[in-house]
Amino acid sequence: MLWSGWGDPAKAADLPQPVRKLLRELLGVREPARPAASFGEVRLGPVALSPLILAELRRAVGADHVRFDDDARIRHTRGKSTLDLLRMREGDGADAPDAVLLPGTHQEVLDVLRLCAEHRVAVVPFGGGTSVVGGLAPSRRGFAGVVALDLARLNRLISVDEESMVADLEPGLRAPQAEQLLAGHGLTLGHFPQSYEYATLGGFAAARSSGQASAGYGRFDDMVVGVTVATPRGTLELGRAPKSAAGPDLRQLVLGSEGAFGVITSLRLRVRRAPAEKVYEGWRFASFTAGTAALRRVAQEGPMPTVLRLSDEAETMVGLAEPGEIGGFQGEAGCLAVVGYEGDGDDVAYRRERTAETLSGLGGVYLGPERGEAWARGRFSAPYLRDALLAAGATVETVETACFWSGLPRLYDAVRLVLGAALGTPGASPLVMCHVSHVYGTGASLYFTVVTAQSDDPIGQWETAKRAVNEAIGLAGGTISHHHGVGGDHRAAYAAEIGELGVEILRAVKERLDPAGILNPGILLP
Amino acid sequence: MLWSGWGDPAKAADLPQPVRKLLRELLGVREPARPAASFGEVRLGPVALSPLILAELRRAVGADHVRFDDDARIRHTRGKSTLDLLRMREGDGADAPDAVLLPGTHQEVLDVLRLCAEHRVAVVPFGGGTSVVGGLAPSRRGFAGVVALDLARLNRLISVDEESMVADLEPGLRAPQAEQLLAGHGLTLGHFPQSYEYATLGGFAAARSSGQASAGYGRFDDMVVGVTVATPRGTLELGRAPKSAAGPDLRQLVLGSEGAFGVITSLRLRVRRAPAEKVYEGWRFASFTAGTAALRRVAQEGPMPTVLRLSDEAETMVGLAEPGEIGGFQGEAGCLAVVGYEGDGDDVAYRRERTAETLSGLGGVYLGPERGEAWARGRFSAPYLRDALLAAGATVETVETACFWSGLPRLYDAVRLVLGAALGTPGASPLVMCHVSHVYGTGASLYFTVVTAQSDDPIGQWETAKRAVNEAIGLAGGTISHHHGVGGDHRAAYAAEIGELGVEILRAVKERLDPAGILNPGILLP
Repeated sequence: MLWSGWGDPAKAADLPQPVRKLLRELLGVREPARPAASFGEVRLGPVALSPLILAELRRAVGADHVRFDDDARIRHTRGKSTLDLLRMREGDGADAPDAVLLPGTHQEVLDVLRLCAEHRVAVVPFGGGTSVVGGLAPSRRGFAGVVALDLARLNRLISVDEESMVADLEPGLRAPQAEQLLAGHGLTLGHFPQSYEYATLGGFAAARSSGQASAGYGRFDDMVVGVTVATPRGTLELGRAPKSAAGPDLRQLVLGSEGAFGVITSLRLRVRRAPAEKVYEGWRFASFTAGTAALRRVAQEGPMPTVLRLSDEAETMVGLAEPGEIGGFQGEAGCLAVVGYEGDGDDVAYRRERTAETLSGLGGVYLGPERGEAWARGRFSAPYLRDALLAAGATVETVETACFWSGLPRLYDAVRLVLGAALGTPGASPLVMCHVSHVYGTGASLYFTVVTAQSDDPIGQWETAKRAVNEAIGLAGGTISHHHGVGGDHRAAYAAEIGELGVEILRAVKERLDPAGILNPGILLP
Repeated sequence: MLWSGWGDPAKAADLPQPVRKLLRELLGVREPARPAASFGEVRLGPVALSPLILAELRRAVGADHVRFDDDARIRHTRGKSTLDLLRMREGDGADAPDAVLLPGTHQEVLDVLRLCAEHRVAVVPFGGGTSVVGGLAPSRRGFAGVVALDLARLNRLISVDEESMVADLEPGLRAPQAEQLLAGHGLTLGHFPQSYEYATLGGFAAARSSGQASAGYGRFDDMVVGVTVATPRGTLELGRAPKSAAGPDLRQLVLGSEGAFGVITSLRLRVRRAPAEKVYEGWRFASFTAGTAALRRVAQEGPMPTVLRLSDEAETMVGLAEPGEIGGFQGEAGCLAVVGYEGDGDDVAYRRERTAETLSGLGGVYLGPERGEAWARGRFSAPYLRDALLAAGATVETVETACFWSGLPRLYDAVRLVLGAALGTPGASPLVMCHVSHVYGTGASLYFTVVTAQSDDPIGQWETAKRAVNEAIGLAGGTISHHHGVGGDHRAAYAAEIGELGVEILRAVKERLDPAGILNPGILLP
């Protein structure tokens, strides 16, 4: 993974000429004054941990699995939000951990937590490092140091129970590794978020990830039927059945806890048979309003496709609906929808026929498979595009939320309005695009991408816009995140969303499981 | 509701002659030595609340809404488990509340909780009074008294949002009232547990109810997208979107909390269009093993019917699969399955065809609609039958659990073995019957009904059996309840299931929301 950007440097995206032109002419984007810092220019503080603590940590996980070289520290600094990347591009390594630990077993995680609690060392559970909400840069205040607890060595497929269609997997598995291991049994998780190539199973669970095929396979939190968690106070083992009436569902307290309550060391996940057939198709709607009404009908009356997403007019026009083909389909009118079906032949045929009937009946125009396949080819490439845009002098970031269907138009307008106002200049408006990518019977998510010219202080520029947009989402009744999580960036908005008493509940749980407060301090909870 | 049994006394069931014969000859059941106590014979303690407290409570909810007459107190004593009924039949009113309060608003609930915390009065949130797990008889120890907080006056349909397909409803609505109000909009919840005729929406949520049509409409906890809770520390309002990645899902901490954390005063529930068509059909399988394999295949490959249940050999033979027709279909071999479809014509046709294909392919023999319709007619009558059995000198009770598919045979054997051993006598074995009534891709529930001859101490007889069966469920890896809840009867088993740290989490939440510990003391948590 590129230390200052996304993914495999060999796959870096280049901006097509029409996009460069659009950036320049429409948004007023200019080349940044300073080039990005090189790896060697990143400013790191000294390792704050005492030799005594380091020696104890080495004893706990083995000397080879405690690293504090610059490479390890820089590669475990923050996540992959635009703010994170802007800071790295400026050479700011202030949030680097003092050391990176690589435990190999649940017991080693318990031991590390015990030691860190004893010595007041903050611990950042670290999976793929793909947080886009500041979930990997905890507060140092009051701590003897910060360690990143990299779960990469917890990467086994422990067992498969094909009768129950569940598999026990370790949290450090990256999604493609997990899919490859399961494919050996003819199985799949069906979880394909944009971070797919790098994110880990533990991260998906800890941050309640939702993938592009969530209409068919469900969100990641739907897939978790059991979980083992190491906490400073011992082990939690949850999940004896798919569903239970035995009290509150404590699994749902671990899911979304973002490493603030404990470290997930094992997951029991629902799996599915690998689909025999995959079909992705394009549809066009005259407007975002017409398109969302059609998606709503599909979600409420079923049957559900596997993938169901709709770009608004702006996203369709720019061609970002298929990021791999950026520039290729520019200038289109209306709104592009991508509808996919995965499964066996009969099932795909039935769902495709019923869905097509509903979409046509509500004004959808069938565009054939070409547009769906273009989307599928480029489905993981948007983060690469962001690097190219940042380098070209644009700020690009995403904002996502969800609400009930009747609130969607107001939420859509509120976010666009605030992003436009916060990032506009007398000379140029930002480009704000949106899609619906996750639908339910009762509501849907909205996923915005905003592109604007970098000011002289792009970090401050985005921080200001982010504060305004968080507030607007709250006022419009949306949740502060549908699938990115809370991290540090949504902490205040999250507190407002669940209210004082909600925050107190979480604090009570945190204090009981992590009395020294070492786990991801400042993340999730204010 | 009958004070010492179930439902409308006019609908009391009579035992058919073949059933009486079976009880006598197979189980050794004899008429009880003593007749059941009459209403007037119930022994009630004096009202323990001081005039001062009563005056304050009257001020909070209005004088008409504080009752402490014998009728109100007896009708709010315990729930409807067999133990509860046996105690009432013995005239034991020791668990009667001192008073019954009927608040009319969320604010009045808050006021009552504040007053009760101040005066250390225990509060039992009371919906339909249908708990079968001892959820309505909290511990008096250390309290100035106990009040039942009857939510019957919180019985409004507040609003319907047809665009989002959600409705805001109050917790005191009984299920048939709620269905009637929603039917005015062409809508339904689709939640039909056996307690349907009396249970309330608040109770469904607080105890994670699951209805007979859960395959199609989902469990009640799936339907709750928003919830308002009054606690001694103030109000919780949760649920801005169907799903969110903003931290742990706190709704899932309220669901299943059984009144121990707060009182649910409003629910936002997902609703569905009332189905145009309803089809229920019978199928026969050669064995329970063959039948569960077929249900598993349907649950894992879809599409799902709306109702999917399978009786084991014993339940099929006795004819309890259709309790309304008890005795009518006795002596059958094999296992009866009931498969139902509700929806629009096309959807029903497709699901029916695909499901029939799967069931036939796995040995199912189609029996036509007669057997499905018989089940549908009698679907709420089993509790009436229980009263007749108790009166005849039999003990009859249910035990339910769930686990992953691969563990099901072991769990099935363990529960039957233990019930047989605990309730058998040299002369007779108990009759143990079972059905699967809730299926998921990864597992299923098991619902046992056991009938045995009452000993001289039927309460002690069942308490001993219950302890043994709770332990057996735990050892076999099942959850202590799939849809009845924890109450007092499953408290110890629940603590073992979630472990010490799980209990500590719940205690931490409880202490934060209810520092005086007045809410349902002794229920849910040990």
